[in-house]
Order: sequence, then C-alpha cells, then structure tokens
Amino acid sequence: MTTAYADEREPGERGPAARRDAEATKAVIVKAARYLLARHAHGDITLKAVADRAGVSPPLILKYFGSKDALFSGVMNFEADVESFLDAPPADLGRHMVRHVLTGQAERGADPILRIVFAPLHGEQGEILRANFRTQVSGALAGRLAGEDAGLRAELAVSMLLGLGVMYGIARGPHVWAADIEEVVDRYAPAVQAVLRAPGCIA
Amino acid sequence: MTTAYADEREPGERGPAARRDAEATKAVIVKAARYLLARHAHGDITLKAVADRAGVSPPLILKYFGSKDALFSGVMNFEADVESFLDAPPADLGRHMVRHVLTGQAERGADPILRIVFAPLHGEQGEILRANFRTQVSGALAGRLAGEDAGLRAELAVSMLLGLGVMYGIARGPHVWAADIEEVVDRYAPAVQAVLRAPGCIA
Repeated sequence: MTTAYADEREPGERGPAARRDAEATKAVIVKAARYLLARHAHGDITLKAVADRAGVSPPLILKYFGSKDALFSGVMNFEADVESFLDAPPADLGRHMVRHVLTGQAERGADPILRIVFAPLHGEQGEILRANFRTQVSGALAGRLAGEDAGLRAELAVSMLLGLGVMYGIARGPHVWAADIEEVVDRYAPAVQAVLRAPGCIA
Repeated sequence: MTTAYADEREPGERGPAARRDAEATKAVIVKAARYLLARHAHGDITLKAVADRAGVSPPLILKYFGSKDALFSGVMNFEADVESFLDAPPADLGRHMVRHVLTGQAERGADPILRIVFAPLHGEQGEILRANFRTQVSGALAGRLAGEDAGLRAELAVSMLLGLGVMYGIARGPHVWAADIEEVVDRYAPAVQAVLRAPGCIA
C-alpha cells in the first residue's frame, strides 16, 4: 500500500529506517497534541487540528493512537518524564529538582510537570491528568521519603517546583530569566529541601 | 424603558437599590468571564457564552463594559486583589501571603494571582495578563523589599505562592487539602520568608 504519507504503511511492510520514521512521526503527533492541549479546551480541539499541526493525515493519528481521546490520555501522563526529575539521593533532591525545572525551561522551553496547570481546560480528561499527577509525580516523590507526613511534604515540595515552572514558563518573570541558573538553585533549593525534610530531622 | 432584564435601564432611571443591583450584575458578568477564561482560549469564547453563563443579555455586557475585549482586559488585572495579598509588614509577609492563598482556596475556591497560569490560552491578551502580573504582583512585592535583588527575591517568593495555588486549586493534592491551614503555613511560610530575605540579612 502506498499513500501520500510515507509512514502510513503497516510496520511489517517497512525496514528499520521506516520504523524509526514512524516513531519520529508519533513523537511529532504527541508534540502537536501537547501544544494544543496547553492552549485550548479539550473539547475545542479537533482531530484535524492535531493532524494539521503535526503535518499528517487524521487517519494516520487514528491508526497510531486508536482515537483522539486515547492520544490525549497518553499525553496526559507524567511517567516518562518523572524518572529523571526524581533521579537523585534524598539529601540532594531539592537541588536536583530545581535544576531540572530550570534547565528544562531554559534549554527546551519544556517543563513536564507543569502540564497539570491545564487540567481545568479538559473536563473529565482533566481528572485523568490530576489522578496521574497525584500518583506519578507527588506520589512517586512521597515514596522516596522516609519519616512522617511524606505525602504532605512531597506535595509542598512539588508546589514549589510547579510555581517555579509557572514563573519561568508562563509568567516569564524577567528577574528569574536574567539570573544565572545556579544562583536560582542556591536561593530556591534550600527551601524545597526544607519542606521535604521529615519534622524533627536536622539533616 | 422596560426590558426582559430588570437592570437594562439607564442608571439615571433607577434608585440606589437598582444601582446596587447593577453593581451586582456587573460582578456576575466578571465572574462568568473569569470562569470561561480559565477554561477556554480567549478566541474560543463568544460574547453570548459569557452572557449565557451570567444570565444576562449580550447587549447588557456591551453597555456595561463596551466590548468583549474591554471586559476581558478588565478581568486580566490583579490590582484589586493584590492590596490584601501584600497587606503585612515585611517580616510577616511570608506567613501572611501563604495564609492568604490557603484561605482564598479553602473559603472561596479563589486565588486571584493564580489567573496568570491561563496566559497561554489568551494569545495577545495573554501578554497583557503577563505585563499586569509583573507590575501589579511581583513588582508590587519587590517595591516593599529593602536590599539587593529585590526583583528576583520577589519573583521567587511569588513562584512559591503560585505553586501552592496550583497544588490546591488545580492539582487538588489530597494531602494539602487534608492538612490544617496553620500546619501548612508553619511548614511553607518559612521557605517563602527565606527567599524574600535580602542576602546576608539574618532577620
């Protein structure tokens, strides 16, 4: 089968290069969905709008993802991004997470955990986003903490990181943008580490 | 003149009670606009949608506010809300602002500074929202701080408060909701106060 879109053939018909192309095309579709989900209500986005932005045909999206809702559910997931976000020993988590937010914003204009702020746009799908966030982000962080009230400590630390992402990526505060990343890490991370710390623990 | 809408008469035709009704109606229209602006892209919201949500006629909105864009510009303003937000002596600003965010969320489901997170939805109007935020929120806070780097210190403190609002009002973290407000103030406010503090200042 040959179509106007090079990667609309079945995977079995293609070699490794074509399969890599298919993965790249899927990534472009996911990126287009993320872009639109950060700017429009879920119900206001058509399959065609995603296809147009990704430069593919609507049927190709259905072939890869099954449905528009299935594509959006996959996008509303934090699992793939959280591993590197939390990849530090507990005593260094504050600095690591702050630096992760800042470098993501500065280098890629991206902050994976910040997607939660668009939950109000997405009706019932917003509840999926919230549930995933609780499990995959604040819940995952809480799971790395010893001591009492780990859930609350994790949510307060994540609050600080979300806020930093809003200030950089959305409000675009001129002072944080002008400051050196390590200067901001030095000022902000001790606060994150302080709310992470177990009550009564001085380490 | 009598219409189907009681307060579509000119102000001069009405007594004090009617003028109070007009103020109440304007507040309902503003509330409807805020609701929709937190859930839909600026360009996707019709005048009729605002009117339907407020339970008034579209011409009444035009009479009170001039145009849809003028209504939205007025809504994208933080001045009226920031006075009480910053109303504390510098040494107590951290606790005051944290408590203000928490009680606003708990008692009214509202957090006026959090509206900045919807800037990406609103195209050019989003830039108005950002400019107002910089001047009326972080800039106003910076103006109350002595010492070096007041702009950066203010933006970092505001980041923490924005994040707390996202966690409560949008992510709806179960642990912060379950916790006592004063418990959260005790854990979170020292961090806000620490980033507010001038470098080298131990007070």
